[in-house]
Amino acid sequence: SRTVRAPRGSTLHCKNWLAEAAYRMLQNNLDPEVAENPQALVVYGGIGRAARNWECFDQILESLRNLEADESLLIQSGKPVGVFKTHENAPRVLLANSNLVPRWADWEHFDELDRKGLFMYGQMTAGSWIYIGSQGIVQGTFETFVEAGRQHYGGSLAGRWILTAGLGGMGGAQPLAATLAGACSLTVECKQSSIDFRLRTRYVDKQARDIDDALALIAQHTARGEAVSIALLGNAAEVLPELVRRARAGGIRPDIVTDQTSAHDLVNGYLPEGWSVAQWQAAAAEPAQHAALRAAAAGSCAVHVQAMLDFQAMGVPTVDYGNNIRQVALDQGVKNAFDFPGFVPAYIRPLFCEGKGPFRWVALSGDPEDIYKTDAKIKELFPENTHTHRWLDMARERIAFQGLPARICWLGLGERHKAALAFNEMVRSGEIKAPIVIGRDHLDTGSVASPNRETEAMKDGTDAVSDWPLLNALLNTAGGATWVSLHHGGGVGMGYSQHSGVVIVADGTDAAAERLARVLWNDPASGVMRHADAGYELAIATAKAQGLNLPMVR
Amino acid sequence: SRTVRAPRGSTLHCKNWLAEAAYRMLQNNLDPEVAENPQALVVYGGIGRAARNWECFDQILESLRNLEADESLLIQSGKPVGVFKTHENAPRVLLANSNLVPRWADWEHFDELDRKGLFMYGQMTAGSWIYIGSQGIVQGTFETFVEAGRQHYGGSLAGRWILTAGLGGMGGAQPLAATLAGACSLTVECKQSSIDFRLRTRYVDKQARDIDDALALIAQHTARGEAVSIALLGNAAEVLPELVRRARAGGIRPDIVTDQTSAHDLVNGYLPEGWSVAQWQAAAAEPAQHAALRAAAAGSCAVHVQAMLDFQAMGVPTVDYGNNIRQVALDQGVKNAFDFPGFVPAYIRPLFCEGKGPFRWVALSGDPEDIYKTDAKIKELFPENTHTHRWLDMARERIAFQGLPARICWLGLGERHKAALAFNEMVRSGEIKAPIVIGRDHLDTGSVASPNRETEAMKDGTDAVSDWPLLNALLNTAGGATWVSLHHGGGVGMGYSQHSGVVIVADGTDAAAERLARVLWNDPASGVMRHADAGYELAIATAKAQGLNLPMVR
Ligand SMILES: NC(=O)c1ccc[n+]([C@@H]2O[C@H](COP(=O)([O-])OP(=O)(O)OC[C@H]3O[C@@H](n4cnc5c(N)ncnc54)[C@H](O)[C@@H]3O)[C@@H](O)[C@H]2O)c1
Ligand SMILES: NC(=O)c1ccc[n+]([C@@H]2O[C@H](COP(=O)([O-])OP(=O)(O)OC[C@H]3O[C@@H](n4cnc5c(N)ncnc54)[C@H](O)[C@@H]3O)[C@@H](O)[C@H]2O)c1
Repeated sequence: SRTVRAPRGSTLHCKNWLAEAAYRMLQNNLDPEVAENPQALVVYGGIGRAARNWECFDQILESLRNLEADESLLIQSGKPVGVFKTHENAPRVLLANSNLVPRWADWEHFDELDRKGLFMYGQMTAGSWIYIGSQGIVQGTFETFVEAGRQHYGGSLAGRWILTAGLGGMGGAQPLAATLAGACSLTVECKQSSIDFRLRTRYVDKQARDIDDALALIAQHTARGEAVSIALLGNAAEVLPELVRRARAGGIRPDIVTDQTSAHDLVNGYLPEGWSVAQWQAAAAEPAQHAALRAAAAGSCAVHVQAMLDFQAMGVPTVDYGNNIRQVALDQGVKNAFDFPGFVPAYIRPLFCEGKGPFRWVALSGDPEDIYKTDAKIKELFPENTHTHRWLDMARERIAFQGLPARICWLGLGERHKAALAFNEMVRSGEIKAPIVIGRDHLDTGSVASPNRETEAMKDGTDAVSDWPLLNALLNTAGGATWVSLHHGGGVGMGYSQHSGVVIVADGTDAAAERLARVLWNDPASGVMRHADAGYELAIATAKAQGLNLPMVR
Repeated sequence: SRTVRAPRGSTLHCKNWLAEAAYRMLQNNLDPEVAENPQALVVYGGIGRAARNWECFDQILESLRNLEADESLLIQSGKPVGVFKTHENAPRVLLANSNLVPRWADWEHFDELDRKGLFMYGQMTAGSWIYIGSQGIVQGTFETFVEAGRQHYGGSLAGRWILTAGLGGMGGAQPLAATLAGACSLTVECKQSSIDFRLRTRYVDKQARDIDDALALIAQHTARGEAVSIALLGNAAEVLPELVRRARAGGIRPDIVTDQTSAHDLVNGYLPEGWSVAQWQAAAAEPAQHAALRAAAAGSCAVHVQAMLDFQAMGVPTVDYGNNIRQVALDQGVKNAFDFPGFVPAYIRPLFCEGKGPFRWVALSGDPEDIYKTDAKIKELFPENTHTHRWLDMARERIAFQGLPARICWLGLGERHKAALAFNEMVRSGEIKAPIVIGRDHLDTGSVASPNRETEAMKDGTDAVSDWPLLNALLNTAGGATWVSLHHGGGVGMGYSQHSGVVIVADGTDAAAERLARVLWNDPASGVMRHADAGYELAIATAKAQGLNLPMVR
């Protein structure tokens, strides 16, 4: 069994810092603190891998060690396939992962190739070497809640509460994100073990004894304006309808409703009403019982969605959090299941229109102090951006680094390159001990076509047009990013998405400064362009305010 | 009604020759001599367009006129969507046409977007501004026949004859290509008008009176080693079985058998046995008769394929030419219909393994003399390449220029950049009057994934893996091509292919020389890499001989 961990410090293993950055980030993705299953090279998200197999992994490192400053390494679904001469302002690594000609773009064909060692699932940041652990999940959820607060509550969630369910892998970030966003939260979870885990890691503050206790706690903390998170053991399909009844009878009502049970997987993901967890797990383990389990879970999802619709009808902002529960309910006959929107069209798209998205960076030195210094720099650069300040403070206090110290924070067009140039100066001056790697998720403003998630319900109906992420990758390559990737199937699986990643290194040189200024302007600008082209007023206004040259947008 | 024609001469309309090249080539694609339906902006291949609509067309020209030497224009399905700062060694134009997320990648969704003005079909060279008319078709067929001669007949087709059918839009190139390749040919065609057209344009030499006359003419010309093309009026589904009978009875047998009737379209493309052309056309015009027509045509295709299989069983090299006739016969119960291969695996793939493909170039001066000078230069550079010499001589003699003077000829890894650098010197010295634009088809060694055509039956089963064309586009962007494109659905339609294009300008500068040396080495090298990765010995040997750095190929 192998243990991989990125080298730290300022000694180079490669011929320059750009190759060294890729060298360290690939290894960092497989750090046991970072990866879900490092032995299988699985970083996160099901089977999202960093390299096709160990032989490929070793050879990628070897090729990076030998890579010249004017060469580019090509990675094809996790395998290093070629080294070519390009030039110093071209990317050092170009990656294409999991791409299939559409007619063959399904899991069946994927599995066939994967089994033969001919392919790899890259997810989003796994195969493009810029995954940084669960900080990203907390922050994405935080940003969603903050945006909801902005839209519905004048920018403050103080004294407000969020009702949701599910404390699993992703869902467990909800209570912490709500707290960071300034809101109380009540999360219904049917497994005591999941609640215990979140209590232990301080992702949730308290567990209520029962519904009465939960509502009393919520009433007390919201009244005091405290952002406290409460977990409640129970079944969402039973608790939510009861909360609807109480609200109708004059009881308190939530200020935001959402859900992160795993309704997308009706065998392993959703406890049917009236069932015990033990019964559920037994049925899930027994294929003969799957049909009955699925039917029961689907029926309960319909009840659950009906309760969400009821809250919406009372005027409570209600949103699907990407678990497909609306589709399940619709299939069960809940005709208006899609009356409440998905989280991207509801809360994230306005951010995308301004070029905002999950900007992230990593300190190659391995020294947490380097990140704290960048935290301070962000605050200094954007003094008016108070919610980012709050995020940075709470992230530092509440979120442990995994692998190389890293930070994530949503910045928009005009902010990203500014931050990067400041980091580059800090590297140049020696204030920071080694170069900083800057990247982002593939879920971002200009980099993804995914009609069931990031591009759901685009204003002009172009949800499925994937010219945009391809142009994004070409533009970032042209601009001189350090590595650029094109993936298929991230987030939603084979056939359902195409997306591109970008990473760029601030090594303190003038050449890096020029590239950073270009790439970290163009990358979010291409997202503003995509949304302006689709007709979003906010994107058009942003494009005008920032002086973008979009020939057909008047 | 608008008439578009590229400007000629050495006066710039844009700020530099790179933008000017795009400016002229877009217009050249819509020259009435070049485009099939210029009013609809359709260049070729069904509805393959050069720009989304006239408004977009005008704005592309306007944006190109204003484009600075360090800016890049982004084209999204024929629409100019953004201008971004990059740098002088980055492409001036980046294009993505017709790309859809796989689950939505069908004609139905395409049509919906197209109808709303939100999309465009780019085909291959239509949307990437490097279509040059029918020279490409003749040459592709020529190259296929030459390769067949190399594989089966020691490199010479003298005294050999090719049996085929169909003298339509593409198929009409067959007799001329056979002649240029040094072979006699007998082409069966059921429409006298199609034969007349090909006789008039000298694409075919003679028409035989009947089968006896045809065989006599073939016998006579092959005996003399003359490359004469014969057309025969008749139905292939009747003539081919008769030729099988005669061959079995000791008569002459063809040396190569193929077919280019339009068997892919059973209503409009294939005359059933026993039907007159008039009957056929009446049935095709009458939807109520389509089912019967389709059934009759399919039955005849089965007979036709059976005759091809019979020739193959006699040892005659037999090949499908991309018209899907094997699939039709298989569906009719001809179980071994796929016993004979498609033309790519049979003849083109070995060329791809050496990085060979349809290299082409255009004289921006508009002066045919500039092309003749490059013809001479190619001969001088590659004195041993006699079949290219033959092609160049016969192309000059037999093929008229359409739009800006252009030339196509298949060159491999190691040859393309050499030719380009020589052209660049000729531009520098003034020997040629204006810069030369260099490009290729998307059907090329490293630039396409298309499991029913270019990547049919790959050795390792990776027919549908489209990482390769994406890497090709990224690499060419990194290398500094002048424009780079990523398309979907070319050749075989929505859902069935992904491919990339590249164009680069030789403007006589040192900077261009560096870019040409890089890009026109890397582009074919990426094809050698793709085929070496799939396990083709010839590609592996080529990679070694050329010193490619392919980390996992030992
Ligand atoms: N919005 C996003 O960006 C995003 C990202 C990733 C995942 N998701 C979706 O969110 C969902 C949750 O993801 P996860 O990784 O946390 O899944 P998970 O399976 O780890 O957790 C689901 C949790 O829900 C609990 N649960 C199931 N049925 C319940 C019920 N009836 N009542 C109360 N609790 C119940 C389970 O016990 C479990 O703890 C998935 O559907 C996933 O696809 C959304
Ligand atoms: N290999 C390639 O690169 C390539 C490229 C393009 C097209 N194709 C395929 O080649 C085929 C021909 O293309 P095209 O553009 O010439 O089509 P077309 O429809 O213009 O021509 C077909 C010709 O075949 C004749 N024909 C039909 N049935 C016949 C019969 N039973 N006997 C004799 N003649 C018959 C028609 O009269 C017509 O002249 C198509 O299926 C096309 O998809 C191959």
